[in-house]
Amino acid sequence: MSMITNRKDLDFLLYDVVDIVALSETPRYAAYDRSSVSAMLDAAQAIAETVYLPCAVDVDAAEPQFVNGTAVTHPAVKPALEAYADAGFFAAGFDEKDGGLQMPTTVLTAVNGMFSCANLSIHNYATLTIAAAHVLVAFGSPEQRSTFVPPMLDGRWFGTMCLSETQAGSSLSDIRTRAAPIAGNRFAITGTKMWISGGDQDITENIVHLVLARLPDSPAGVKGLSLFIVPKFRIDDLGRPVVFNNVTLAGLNHKLGNRGTTNTLLNFGEAGTSEGWMVGEPNQGLKYMFHMMNEARIAIGHGACMLGLAGFLYSLDYARTRTQGRLPSMKDPISPQVPIIQHADVRRLLLAQKAAVEGGMALVLYCASLVDAATVCESETDRRDLALLLDLLTPVAKSWPSEFCLEANKHAIQILGGYGYARDYPTERFYRDNRLNPIHEGTHAIHGLDILGRKVRIQDGAALEIFALRLRETIAAAAEHISLIDFARGLEAALDALVATTEKVLAAKNIDLQLANATLYLDAFGHISVGWLWLKQGLAATRLLACQSPDTAFLVGKLQTMRYFHTFELPRAANLLSVVASLDDTSLGMQVDSFTGA
Amino acid sequence: MSMITNRKDLDFLLYDVVDIVALSETPRYAAYDRSSVSAMLDAAQAIAETVYLPCAVDVDAAEPQFVNGTAVTHPAVKPALEAYADAGFFAAGFDEKDGGLQMPTTVLTAVNGMFSCANLSIHNYATLTIAAAHVLVAFGSPEQRSTFVPPMLDGRWFGTMCLSETQAGSSLSDIRTRAAPIAGNRFAITGTKMWISGGDQDITENIVHLVLARLPDSPAGVKGLSLFIVPKFRIDDLGRPVVFNNVTLAGLNHKLGNRGTTNTLLNFGEAGTSEGWMVGEPNQGLKYMFHMMNEARIAIGHGACMLGLAGFLYSLDYARTRTQGRLPSMKDPISPQVPIIQHADVRRLLLAQKAAVEGGMALVLYCASLVDAATVCESETDRRDLALLLDLLTPVAKSWPSEFCLEANKHAIQILGGYGYARDYPTERFYRDNRLNPIHEGTHAIHGLDILGRKVRIQDGAALEIFALRLRETIAAAAEHISLIDFARGLEAALDALVATTEKVLAAKNIDLQLANATLYLDAFGHISVGWLWLKQGLAATRLLACQSPDTAFLVGKLQTMRYFHTFELPRAANLLSVVASLDDTSLGMQVDSFTGA
Repeated sequence: MSMITNRKDLDFLLYDVVDIVALSETPRYAAYDRSSVSAMLDAAQAIAETVYLPCAVDVDAAEPQFVNGTAVTHPAVKPALEAYADAGFFAAGFDEKDGGLQMPTTVLTAVNGMFSCANLSIHNYATLTIAAAHVLVAFGSPEQRSTFVPPMLDGRWFGTMCLSETQAGSSLSDIRTRAAPIAGNRFAITGTKMWISGGDQDITENIVHLVLARLPDSPAGVKGLSLFIVPKFRIDDLGRPVVFNNVTLAGLNHKLGNRGTTNTLLNFGEAGTSEGWMVGEPNQGLKYMFHMMNEARIAIGHGACMLGLAGFLYSLDYARTRTQGRLPSMKDPISPQVPIIQHADVRRLLLAQKAAVEGGMALVLYCASLVDAATVCESETDRRDLALLLDLLTPVAKSWPSEFCLEANKHAIQILGGYGYARDYPTERFYRDNRLNPIHEGTHAIHGLDILGRKVRIQDGAALEIFALRLRETIAAAAEHISLIDFARGLEAALDALVATTEKVLAAKNIDLQLANATLYLDAFGHISVGWLWLKQGLAATRLLACQSPDTAFLVGKLQTMRYFHTFELPRAANLLSVVASLDDTSLGMQVDSFTGA
Repeated sequence: MSMITNRKDLDFLLYDVVDIVALSETPRYAAYDRSSVSAMLDAAQAIAETVYLPCAVDVDAAEPQFVNGTAVTHPAVKPALEAYADAGFFAAGFDEKDGGLQMPTTVLTAVNGMFSCANLSIHNYATLTIAAAHVLVAFGSPEQRSTFVPPMLDGRWFGTMCLSETQAGSSLSDIRTRAAPIAGNRFAITGTKMWISGGDQDITENIVHLVLARLPDSPAGVKGLSLFIVPKFRIDDLGRPVVFNNVTLAGLNHKLGNRGTTNTLLNFGEAGTSEGWMVGEPNQGLKYMFHMMNEARIAIGHGACMLGLAGFLYSLDYARTRTQGRLPSMKDPISPQVPIIQHADVRRLLLAQKAAVEGGMALVLYCASLVDAATVCESETDRRDLALLLDLLTPVAKSWPSEFCLEANKHAIQILGGYGYARDYPTERFYRDNRLNPIHEGTHAIHGLDILGRKVRIQDGAALEIFALRLRETIAAAAEHISLIDFARGLEAALDALVATTEKVLAAKNIDLQLANATLYLDAFGHISVGWLWLKQGLAATRLLACQSPDTAFLVGKLQTMRYFHTFELPRAANLLSVVASLDDTSLGMQVDSFTGA
């Protein structure tokens, strides 16, 4: 049994839930038929299992060290990323014209899941680099693209995103880093960036920092942010990194988890000039950065799922072999102890993990499939709809797995009991690693404000309408099966409540009150989205069982997990929406001095 | 602002919720009037803040080392426990005739809370020692008491509880450690015990292990377990520890948290004879041990609350001073950033912490007050009722805070954002420490089986009846206040559902199905118990406000937090009970090969 993937499930999600076959029928993705996708997944799995997984414990235990101004990483990190690069995965998702393999985002997501699950700390470097290269391909000048993108796609240079500052974490509006013109498109960047993942390392010969900074006389707030390429080393005419660009490592952050990824405090322009090259137009930096952030957000939700999967597979394996106790109906103390998977509550903890992990994966792969569908879409209206739906689901795909796959990791520890709490077993590491995900790339609360404050308002609620339409299609199809009708009706009721709650909130006068319970709205939205994707999975399983699929145990498990999610978890959405719809002001109205009375 | 206690709240809980004044009116506890209790709390707070708190970071960072067969602890641990001993706190809860101060359990709980909150890893040694001494006082022979109890009450010898073995964690029935008669009451103990907290250390001159083991020819299962005192060093005629008793440290467990407390694998009788002295009657060991376990279970719930409190106070202080962002209604990006406590979601995260922590504390203090009430009770029927109620609430007081104050610690991290995830701030440590609590002293699931499988069945449901009666008293009193009537009715509905669910489940034929969702029942029971204690707090606050109490902000905060718990959290109980009442078999019926299809 693999500890990083369930290929049967991955195939089910790719072919029976999001349906990538349709994609391979387009000219752009013709190379990605089932057998070639399978071969790529095989290749990724092999590297992830033989290179990434074996060093996961060591990389966690020996976090990067600050030595002579540089972050020195564990010696296993560099060769792992080289293996990833050698297999062509840095370039895989890029167009052929840009030196890539034109791999569909859906497939690339599945591929990258192998690496995240095996060793997320290492894989983070690749995720950031790929996202940064995407920004340069989308918005960089021809010279910027030709200079920076090829070494990034080779994995010789890595990328970072430099947004946060100590006084500007969630509030990008308050970024202070400055960019003073030198000549042409060159600027001197001055400022300090905090929480920069991969901000320094000894893995690659150069680091391409994408930095948000302010031009002189630019407007206050986010409208005055521009985007700059600031490499660690300046580049000569032959494209070689030659001169230190005064991007100084001021400190390493020591974290609960994700210890294999350096996380840094960086000074720009303090030890000398840090030269930057502006990307695109002035004051459009946040828009460009959002290109990277949206990709990173979905990647974070995906990483959360993969940590959840790691815990699920590990604790499942443990529960099958560890014997302890007897069922309540077994009174005889000299009867043999049973494998703990026989205990109902252990099964519940496994079902909760499976529901969160495979539900979250379905959500993330669905989002990836929207990217692919938009890429090959020939109708402008359809493409707009796909983009709206992706925009709406991005905060959900980031946030729901971050919250509920962390909960899944908590359950994995619980199944192992004392062993789960011990550092000799990996479950406590998954839990530590996953705790980051509700924090970075926009905290959980920020995504609540994003969905209720922005996304459901765009074009008069067009995105929510598209979302509702997709759910109603699945509900209608499921309602044709007697075994699914209750779940279809349950989801329909939850969706109706979501739509009604949204209308009620948006009709309120006071914007602070409208958004006071936005996080609850986000959680409810996530539960309903995942409830939908479980109904989709239940529908697909029902259809396959009707066609005499040989995978009976697997498909019955899908139906049972749908039942679990709809019975045990989905009802929470109604509770949450009831608070939101009532415009409850308990939180907003709590006075500061009432928390302790002092 | 203290980082380990809110004395105003502690006073409110002690005097306005559980009412210890009535206690000080009994002859036994006459010394514990308000001013003397206050002085003891002052003394405890001073030691906890000046000795326990300052070393918490270091003790966590430098976990015990295995050196020449001994566990070597951080140098700050021993002096901290000496300060605790010097202040008389080891002995405080014991009768005057046993050398104690006859402190009521309620007061002692409040006192010990200071130490748990400041440095739980260190305080664990005291908790275990006190509980072990209680067992010896209750069940030991006069010689055993005079030999072992005085040095334990002086803090010169510590105690442990040795139940688990590698093959017998949750399943005590499968304990294999053997006790072979030597002479008289002396036995040779042979076996290996796992997960023994304080199992070895370099703090005290002796360690008193209380060990469950089997006599030859004893029955299988828990009915064949006897209890033995097995000191690390055997004692000479003058009571001095002189000869190593061959209790060998076989290994230290390295854990996610609680790193200041040694956790050990111990071998008995491998390197030579480990002599033990039987406590009480043969085959009654588990009954005696339960005396210790019940005390330890409530202490664990309390420790979970105190970790929750530490996170709450820290994140509250942070939220008041850290500025970030603006309210949705503030559009101007050059207006100053607001303290994050102004954000509704930060207030929600603080309210959730306050609700869990102060609700959990009320529950634990209420349980402690039942112990005291039973001690001074003159009616046998009343004493029986108090014991039944305490028995019923023990799994709840252990489990509910372990689950929901862990969630509170998750929220504390979230309020600090990236800083909360960094090891420079204490919130990640609280979260690591608290993750143990749903595991040890009976896992969360074990307590579900305990309450639904045993506690609600005792004497035909007598305990649940007493519980319901107490709740209905509060509901009736609250319903007289217009401002509380909705909350009273909400609790009443939840209580009715609990009673109906219990009847429905107990009427079912299949015991495995009856108990399949016992954990959900436990969680619902906890929510209803805490909902009740919040209503009690709301009622007390309402009465005080009506009397023109000057603590308006504090009391309004209590009412607001009651409202938060009843609106945001309590509705979950109905969802959980609905699953339990339907005898849902989703978890029980999930087949092993359906989890992955392989």
